Amino acid sequence: MARDVKKVVLAYSGGLDTSVILKWLQTTYGCEVVTFTADLGQGEELTPAREKALLLGIKPENIFIEDVREEFVRDYVFPMFRANALYEGQYLLGTSIARPLIAKKQIEIARRVGADAVSHGATGKGNDQVRFELGYYALEPEITVIAPWREWDLTSRTRLLEFAEAHQIPIAKDKRGEAPFSVDANLLHSSSEGKVLEDPAEDAPDYVYQRTLSPEAAPDVATLVEIGFQQGDAVSIDGELLSPATLLTRLNELGRANGIGRLDLVENRFVGMKSRGIYETPGGTILLAAHRGIESITLDRGAAHLKDELMPRYAELIYNGFWFAPEREMLQAAIDHSQRFVTGTVKVKLYKGNATVVGRESPYSLYNQDLVTFEEGAVAYDHRDAAGFIKLNALRLRTYGARARKIPD
Amino acid sequence: MARDVKKVVLAYSGGLDTSVILKWLQTTYGCEVVTFTADLGQGEELTPAREKALLLGIKPENIFIEDVREEFVRDYVFPMFRANALYEGQYLLGTSIARPLIAKKQIEIARRVGADAVSHGATGKGNDQVRFELGYYALEPEITVIAPWREWDLTSRTRLLEFAEAHQIPIAKDKRGEAPFSVDANLLHSSSEGKVLEDPAEDAPDYVYQRTLSPEAAPDVATLVEIGFQQGDAVSIDGELLSPATLLTRLNELGRANGIGRLDLVENRFVGMKSRGIYETPGGTILLAAHRGIESITLDRGAAHLKDELMPRYAELIYNGFWFAPEREMLQAAIDHSQRFVTGTVKVKLYKGNATVVGRESPYSLYNQDLVTFEEGAVAYDHRDAAGFIKLNALRLRTYGARARKIPD
Amino acid sequence: MARDVKKVVLAYSGGLDTSVILKWLQTTYGCEVVTFTADLGQGEELTPAREKALLLGIKPENIFIEDVREEFVRDYVFPMFRANALYEGQYLLGTSIARPLIAKKQIEIARRVGADAVSHGATGKGNDQVRFELGYYALEPEITVIAPWREWDLTSRTRLLEFAEAHQIPIAKDKRGEAPFSVDANLLHSSSEGKVLEDPAEDAPDYVYQRTLSPEAAPDVATLVEIGFQQGDAVSIDGELLSPATLLTRLNELGRANGIGRLDLVENRFVGMKSRGIYETPGGTILLAAHRGIESITLDRGAAHLKDELMPRYAELIYNGFWFAPEREMLQAAIDHSQRFVTGTVKVKLYKGNATVVGRESPYSLYNQDLVTFEEGAVAYDHRDAAGFIKLNALRLRTYGARARKIPD
Amino acid sequence: MARDVKKVVLAYSGGLDTSVILKWLQTTYGCEVVTFTADLGQGEELTPAREKALLLGIKPENIFIEDVREEFVRDYVFPMFRANALYEGQYLLGTSIARPLIAKKQIEIARRVGADAVSHGATGKGNDQVRFELGYYALEPEITVIAPWREWDLTSRTRLLEFAEAHQIPIAKDKRGEAPFSVDANLLHSSSEGKVLEDPAEDAPDYVYQRTLSPEAAPDVATLVEIGFQQGDAVSIDGELLSPATLLTRLNELGRANGIGRLDLVENRFVGMKSRGIYETPGGTILLAAHRGIESITLDRGAAHLKDELMPRYAELIYNGFWFAPEREMLQAAIDHSQRFVTGTVKVKLYKGNATVVGRESPYSLYNQDLVTFEEGAVAYDHRDAAGFIKLNALRLRTYGARARKIPD
Repeated sequence: MARDVKKVVLAYSGGLDTSVILKWLQTTYGCEVVTFTADLGQGEELTPAREKALLLGIKPENIFIEDVREEFVRDYVFPMFRANALYEGQYLLGTSIARPLIAKKQIEIARRVGADAVSHGATGKGNDQVRFELGYYALEPEITVIAPWREWDLTSRTRLLEFAEAHQIPIAKDKRGEAPFSVDANLLHSSSEGKVLEDPAEDAPDYVYQRTLSPEAAPDVATLVEIGFQQGDAVSIDGELLSPATLLTRLNELGRANGIGRLDLVENRFVGMKSRGIYETPGGTILLAAHRGIESITLDRGAAHLKDELMPRYAELIYNGFWFAPEREMLQAAIDHSQRFVTGTVKVKLYKGNATVVGRESPYSLYNQDLVTFEEGAVAYDHRDAAGFIKLNALRLRTYGARARKIPD
Repeated sequence: MARDVKKVVLAYSGGLDTSVILKWLQTTYGCEVVTFTADLGQGEELTPAREKALLLGIKPENIFIEDVREEFVRDYVFPMFRANALYEGQYLLGTSIARPLIAKKQIEIARRVGADAVSHGATGKGNDQVRFELGYYALEPEITVIAPWREWDLTSRTRLLEFAEAHQIPIAKDKRGEAPFSVDANLLHSSSEGKVLEDPAEDAPDYVYQRTLSPEAAPDVATLVEIGFQQGDAVSIDGELLSPATLLTRLNELGRANGIGRLDLVENRFVGMKSRGIYETPGGTILLAAHRGIESITLDRGAAHLKDELMPRYAELIYNGFWFAPEREMLQAAIDHSQRFVTGTVKVKLYKGNATVVGRESPYSLYNQDLVTFEEGAVAYDHRDAAGFIKLNALRLRTYGARARKIPD
Repeated sequence: MARDVKKVVLAYSGGLDTSVILKWLQTTYGCEVVTFTADLGQGEELTPAREKALLLGIKPENIFIEDVREEFVRDYVFPMFRANALYEGQYLLGTSIARPLIAKKQIEIARRVGADAVSHGATGKGNDQVRFELGYYALEPEITVIAPWREWDLTSRTRLLEFAEAHQIPIAKDKRGEAPFSVDANLLHSSSEGKVLEDPAEDAPDYVYQRTLSPEAAPDVATLVEIGFQQGDAVSIDGELLSPATLLTRLNELGRANGIGRLDLVENRFVGMKSRGIYETPGGTILLAAHRGIESITLDRGAAHLKDELMPRYAELIYNGFWFAPEREMLQAAIDHSQRFVTGTVKVKLYKGNATVVGRESPYSLYNQDLVTFEEGAVAYDHRDAAGFIKLNALRLRTYGARARKIPD
Repeated sequence: MARDVKKVVLAYSGGLDTSVILKWLQTTYGCEVVTFTADLGQGEELTPAREKALLLGIKPENIFIEDVREEFVRDYVFPMFRANALYEGQYLLGTSIARPLIAKKQIEIARRVGADAVSHGATGKGNDQVRFELGYYALEPEITVIAPWREWDLTSRTRLLEFAEAHQIPIAKDKRGEAPFSVDANLLHSSSEGKVLEDPAEDAPDYVYQRTLSPEAAPDVATLVEIGFQQGDAVSIDGELLSPATLLTRLNELGRANGIGRLDLVENRFVGMKSRGIYETPGGTILLAAHRGIESITLDRGAAHLKDELMPRYAELIYNGFWFAPEREMLQAAIDHSQRFVTGTVKVKLYKGNATVVGRESPYSLYNQDLVTFEEGAVAYDHRDAAGFIKLNALRLRTYGARARKIPD
């Protein structure tokens, strides 16, 4: 454990826990600490993080603060949504998708400042430690990784606070007591878990939700929104072209107001146990519905079904932290290939928790009213073709059925 | 076409179209017609079907009417729900799953009465013709199949009505004009498609919906319901044990009242074109949510993920009409194996279109609060194990990452 | 059937059957016939095809003859081998992969000469009709397709010969009698099926094999060959850079001489029945072994396993004729992405039917002797990491196993 | 590490390494050691193992020796062969499949003798440690696992020998020096790896092979063998009914004599690195060919293709040690369901490394000569059905192709 480290880049939020880590790294490893604080849309000011880092003795040139919201949505969230990714059929992967970006930034800074180590504040029982560290190792195989929660002896809240006091780390009043649950947030979602949420038989208390009104509290009148897509990515709302992060922010507002995107889930962690989480993904929930809507008229059946079959694996890879693995890239190549004509607009009705597609249009639509109409049309669909189609599809089943007769039960 | 047929078993609804078919079979093939009318929960009286068959000259012993609701839910709907089956990510397969049962019953009757042919009223552009006929052929390889809509020249509404009048088939007043869309219904769902629904850019008119209140019209107060499961199948509501069909009927009522289960979808038909359908699956939508809920605490991760990966293929097989194919049975064997301990109760909150799981309990729960808690517990989870876990998972990525360095871009 | 056709592009081999088709098209459709004859490496002279076409009244400007061997290997065979494609675990898809190229060429010629139809000589029971026609339709949706074997009444050998004689089509002496089996050949393989091969219980007679010595007749001394790869494609033999077709030709010679690449298979046709074929793929068999060999040291495990899982689907798509379908292209995109570093050389030992990899080297090898050695090395592999790795992988199984105890059998 | 252990069941071979482990367990843990020695067909006498155990102080009632060959083949090897399992396209999983059985036996003994721990001799870099321990934990979640190779400091050959001498462990003369490679063997295969085999560019020296003649040394005349199957499992050779282990033994002899079943492979270990192994699976190689042969006429296409798609995952699960995981059982349920009619006989020709299927017969054959014959037969295959089949399969591709035209490149 007492590895020789000279300079470490820490994913630093400015909060109490990562401040304790910062100090613990200095005292335990005697190394120079470089902080990286990202604006991922978590909804917190970054200025205090800088001030606190300075206060804790970090040199100004070692403080890195970056607004990565556009990069986050453009290069991580949107590619993932091209796949309609849902982990275990339900979870939109809001936390999972942010970790590779943070890892990548830390490694880039490590290279720039000549650091030989990186560190994060994820605990030893969760998935995030895996996601961070697989990212680090994939991008910089020889880097040293420090995971304080797995190493230190600050294993209780009391000890942590004692350490903080001993090292003059300011403690906000409301952090004295234990939080009733823990939260992760970024532009795509917020998640809450732990403590009051740990009994999966019990409904989550209402104060857990932070980012959405309850369906009950949402307006009694539906909101209609029109989302424009180009090549699989959302580009506009109600005709207005928007940058990725601006668009997702807008969708979050719409979703929040209409009580959309709450999920109460028991999921399977990569590290082996089940856990219960409350997720709020207001904009993402609307986006998934809309993306499926535009795909429904622009994707060929073969492509659509292949995507559906690949999706669970793709989602699992992201959940488990394998964003930078070649198999994730292979799947992405397949998925991206399918999105070339996923262009058009989708009308979504938002109402008290529901995001319902009610219309879709595309210059590249594969929907052909002439083909589908009950009237026999001018089009080259001959009813009699169906007979041959069925006959040959049935051939093997008939052979199979005939054999079944031969067999005594 | 002028095949020699002596006796044909017709899937007969008692409606105008299948009455015309009945007469057309008699006149075209000069054969004896046997009618089979099933109560699948479509919500229509069966007595008129008997009377009409008699009126059209069917001998009493050739009229078969059967209430198959329990068999339908127990042997078709429930096995399918064990898979969490969704076609193209969204459709609960309400029409698809009813066809194999009807086909099976027709074949059984054909054997009993010594018929050499079967017939159905599905059109030449849809999926149902395929589902019926693959069922027939799989179960009775040498049967003759008559698909009037692919054979006759009654290709317009006018001609059909002329034929009906010429053969004294009673025409209900409201059947004179053309229906603004066509409907299929059974205990699991009702579907509407065609005509006014053919433009996927246009919202479906409200009068299309038949089986659900709109979310707007649903009560302003949520309803809580507790669904009990045994080995993957729902067995009780609020503690009351119910037969499969009774249970689904009850869930339909709950779903209907709370505006749950509407779906506006553009889907890909097996016969090659896209079509737009409006589906209402009130009870099924609640059931899917509840089943995922009970699985979330009782299924092991490996089983759950394998199920998710197999599901799209399974759903496609059912949609395409391959219920009696060996590959569907193989997948069913795998799925059923996973359901042995999917037993317990799930609380679902129903509110204006939302069916939200808010609690789950099971005597066989795999959820372990001791494992997941933030507190370091008595349990055998050692944080340091995570380090090794990550290290070995990272090993190939590190090797891969190291190679990437070697390569000039 | 009596469709109005002005000009048709026929896939013309110069043999008796397609000559009859040529004449039948002229007499039945009264249309202008354009012939396309491709050198795919089937080992036949193309000059006679030109002469015969002239003799049958085809205008010189309507005769198209092209050597497509390089295009065939480069754009069809090699991409397919990147996938290690095997249909039903065994078949190297030699016939399947040639059809899309021929279809594409016919459509290109049809556009150039303003033809409104295409035609081929595949029978009504085989896969090739599907492969040709799916290719035609995908590339030129409105084209008219004429499949004489499904339309005409020349349903016996006798009638066919009568037609030939009636229309002064020269009949080679050895074509008078019926061939004991039918053959398809190109640079990748030759296949034989039908007649004497139709009983799958009986060994294929030795005279069926055309392209390989029997293992028994092959030399008693092994031949060593070194195959060089770049980005997944073979580029050299024993250090000599070779064009794709030249390389495959060379491998065919090596395979032939060493009795390599024979396969006696009962397979499942797309049109629904089982058939038995004798395949000879000498060079392809060596190529597959070598490609797996170079991948074994250059592909990451995640990529390799994903490829293995996608392969059966990919092979099925090619077998069924869906080369130009978007889902095949999506899989190709994934596969191609994996091949960037599949570069190096493989030593293969050829001996009496065996093609055995005995050595592989690559500048981009992921094989790391330091990691694997039994000696504890300098490398960052800590045995104790394995404990944590196993512990966390076991966690869900332990929970699962503990539950199993609770349950009365 | 200094865990409190009272009684440990050791997988004991009687060789030097596990004898050292035995002593090390006694001295390090101060616990009672129970030995389990299995005859898996590795070709070694078991009597010396008993004597050695006694010599090392094990009480007679603590020595368990069992011939598990029949159970091994019947309950592990055969179920796996139903799947045609190949890891990474090539490896027949000979080592992997033996580990779960040993683990299960150790746990059974542990329960019988009241042991609280189990131990094995697998090293810290290999897959076997994972396979053993996942088995232990799945079957007995609270068991203590001791993996000496990951714990002790006997990290060099010298230290190991010193320990042996210090503890009066007899050392066979030929064990003084280091073995040039390490070996694992059971009735299914033998594997060799390490040391002289570690350079994947170099051919394996001939002395590595232990269980097969080289193809060159095999007879110049082929051997024909007829293998009978019932429900997917081999039951007879040349008409003689044989027990599973006897049958595999006989196939091994046939394979050995004919130079069949050698494999030189670089594979990906579960623990993250690539390794090179030399495998000899003479009987298994014949069995796989024969099983594919009988399946080719008895399996429906849908079942066969689903099996092929599931196989890589199934093989990976076994390779990684997840035999007792529910997802392996689910796949097994699907596979077993497909084998009901996989009954019949297959003729295999064995010749200098080749195992070639040359004939297959079954009372349940799905091969139908009438269907496949070129002659238009009495059977219900109408060539014109193919037209409709192709037309509807093409429909989506035509729509897709038509759209492609709309798009400016």
